[in-house]
Amino acid sequence: MTKIEKTIEWIKQGETEGFSRMIDQTIIPYEYKKVDIKTTKDMYDAIKTMIVRGAPAIGIAGAHGVVLAAIENKESTDFCSDVKKQADYVNSSRPTAVNLHWAIQKQLEVVEKNKDKSNDEIIKLLIENAIKLEDEDIEINKKIGEYGASIVPKGATIQTHCNAGALATVGYGTALGVVRSAFEKDKTIKVFADETRPRGQGARLTTYELTRDGIDTTLITDGMSAYFMNKGMIDVVIVGADRIALNGDSANKIGTYMLAIAAKYHNIPFYIAAPKSTIDPNIKTGDEIVIELRNKEEVTIINDKPICTDKVNVINPGFDVTPAELITGIITEYGIFKPDEIHKLFEK
Amino acid sequence: MTKIEKTIEWIKQGETEGFSRMIDQTIIPYEYKKVDIKTTKDMYDAIKTMIVRGAPAIGIAGAHGVVLAAIENKESTDFCSDVKKQADYVNSSRPTAVNLHWAIQKQLEVVEKNKDKSNDEIIKLLIENAIKLEDEDIEINKKIGEYGASIVPKGATIQTHCNAGALATVGYGTALGVVRSAFEKDKTIKVFADETRPRGQGARLTTYELTRDGIDTTLITDGMSAYFMNKGMIDVVIVGADRIALNGDSANKIGTYMLAIAAKYHNIPFYIAAPKSTIDPNIKTGDEIVIELRNKEEVTIINDKPICTDKVNVINPGFDVTPAELITGIITEYGIFKPDEIHKLFEK
Repeated sequence: MTKIEKTIEWIKQGETEGFSRMIDQTIIPYEYKKVDIKTTKDMYDAIKTMIVRGAPAIGIAGAHGVVLAAIENKESTDFCSDVKKQADYVNSSRPTAVNLHWAIQKQLEVVEKNKDKSNDEIIKLLIENAIKLEDEDIEINKKIGEYGASIVPKGATIQTHCNAGALATVGYGTALGVVRSAFEKDKTIKVFADETRPRGQGARLTTYELTRDGIDTTLITDGMSAYFMNKGMIDVVIVGADRIALNGDSANKIGTYMLAIAAKYHNIPFYIAAPKSTIDPNIKTGDEIVIELRNKEEVTIINDKPICTDKVNVINPGFDVTPAELITGIITEYGIFKPDEIHKLFEK
Repeated sequence: MTKIEKTIEWIKQGETEGFSRMIDQTIIPYEYKKVDIKTTKDMYDAIKTMIVRGAPAIGIAGAHGVVLAAIENKESTDFCSDVKKQADYVNSSRPTAVNLHWAIQKQLEVVEKNKDKSNDEIIKLLIENAIKLEDEDIEINKKIGEYGASIVPKGATIQTHCNAGALATVGYGTALGVVRSAFEKDKTIKVFADETRPRGQGARLTTYELTRDGIDTTLITDGMSAYFMNKGMIDVVIVGADRIALNGDSANKIGTYMLAIAAKYHNIPFYIAAPKSTIDPNIKTGDEIVIELRNKEEVTIINDKPICTDKVNVINPGFDVTPAELITGIITEYGIFKPDEIHKLFEK
């Protein structure tokens, strides 16, 4: 396999300096450009405005954010506390995906564990840990891909939603990692990607990265999936997740729940592909997952022009929760689990 | 009630001349403009490009098309045959909605029944019949509205899909006729309108006409309905139809089927509102309904700009079929029927 280009990576400038470099996902497919994020303020904005998006990728953005917080406070006499304060700020950029909190926590553990060392020494360790998390993310995705490929029938058409691809992670992808792994073994598989309104990640990002890899990809609108399921044209649904509760309830991009209901109605298997870090061991069910409400304009304006009267109300939830009963299995780097078995990953 | 402005109407110029005047629905909500259609060729294009859309409205467009065909052939010595040929051409503009065929047939019966009369005499009768069909459409919609209002609970939030409103008919609307009638009795009802990609009739047309009437309207994307149903925020779903089979299977705008599945999953009542002319007594089940496949660009281009890579495939069905088992009732001008009772409308 060719070396994977990282969606987001730490660019070292010596052992205690550097910045975060990421693909700007707001301008794909029109432009493919990287931006350099050098402050915690810019990292907060990059996550909030979705320059970087996708649960695993914003996890890494959070890890980088803690490094930036440490660099910004390198002269501080109250280093640990000041870094934590800035880390909390980055953490507040988006509420639903747990990977952001998870990765920031991983970094804060490095700070805590080494609090007796010099600020520079801690910064060095934070950079090392951030790069380790990047590399691990790709390895994890490849394992998810390998396990997941086993449930893709020969010549299958896979429906996916939003973008759980290379762009949503450091590389390779979760749901699209499964697609890539299946495609390596069987060039006849196909993908149906739905548009994923309001932000259009399916249309903009998923079709972009899959067609670049030469995978046969069909774009449909979000309301069309059931039509194609009814025609027997979809064999399996695989999507990513932003937070999974211990009972298997899974939050993912808005529209996932409706797709899962349609899959159930047609007896089509519905899988979640996500790393263990997407599972939140602190919540028992999906009811506890906070759903981000986003701005009105994401719904009402497309390509800089309104699509409706301005007299209308809008509610714009960014995510929904698919209950465990609609999920056939959760594909992780440790294997494929039934939703009601996922809690076992946290038991010794 | 104030006089209803007709979405589409025949403009008389003497007893045997005139043209069809219709609201251009492709430019709402940006502009509100009427266009005059004076030839069968222009009528074919107006239906095909959806200047006029909505099953009952394109029925009237078809009726006007036959008048135009007759005027174009007023000197013909083979009048009946020439009119029929042009009527078939207009009829071929869109395949799914049965009202187009129904109204053209109604007009051709006028031609057939009066074939011994002069061409001018037949044209006069066709114009009279077209105007009668217009007026009847409004009356039918008001009756649908009245019957339908009985199933709307006090203070209910009604979800609808696409535009089955005044703009889809000559006036008042079918599904939105029910909304209007319910609103006349109870000002606290609300509407959730989904966007209805790819053509966005929900966003463009439904929010436009409902907010003009002062009805509290919330725009959501097509993938959000299940989220709001799960939160208990939707009490009933009411949509229109383009063709209903004798067993109650109902074709309507793509996305309806997925919405019906979601409603069923949440035990939310799902109603079709449509005139008897939308029921096709010649087909037993929805399997016989021809689904129009439309062009790729409707999906890939929004507001003149692509939303995805051009390397992607697209399939763009304009409609889907909701099976009778998902439909709580069909609201017609003759009352509300269970899907499996609808055939009774055609029995003596």
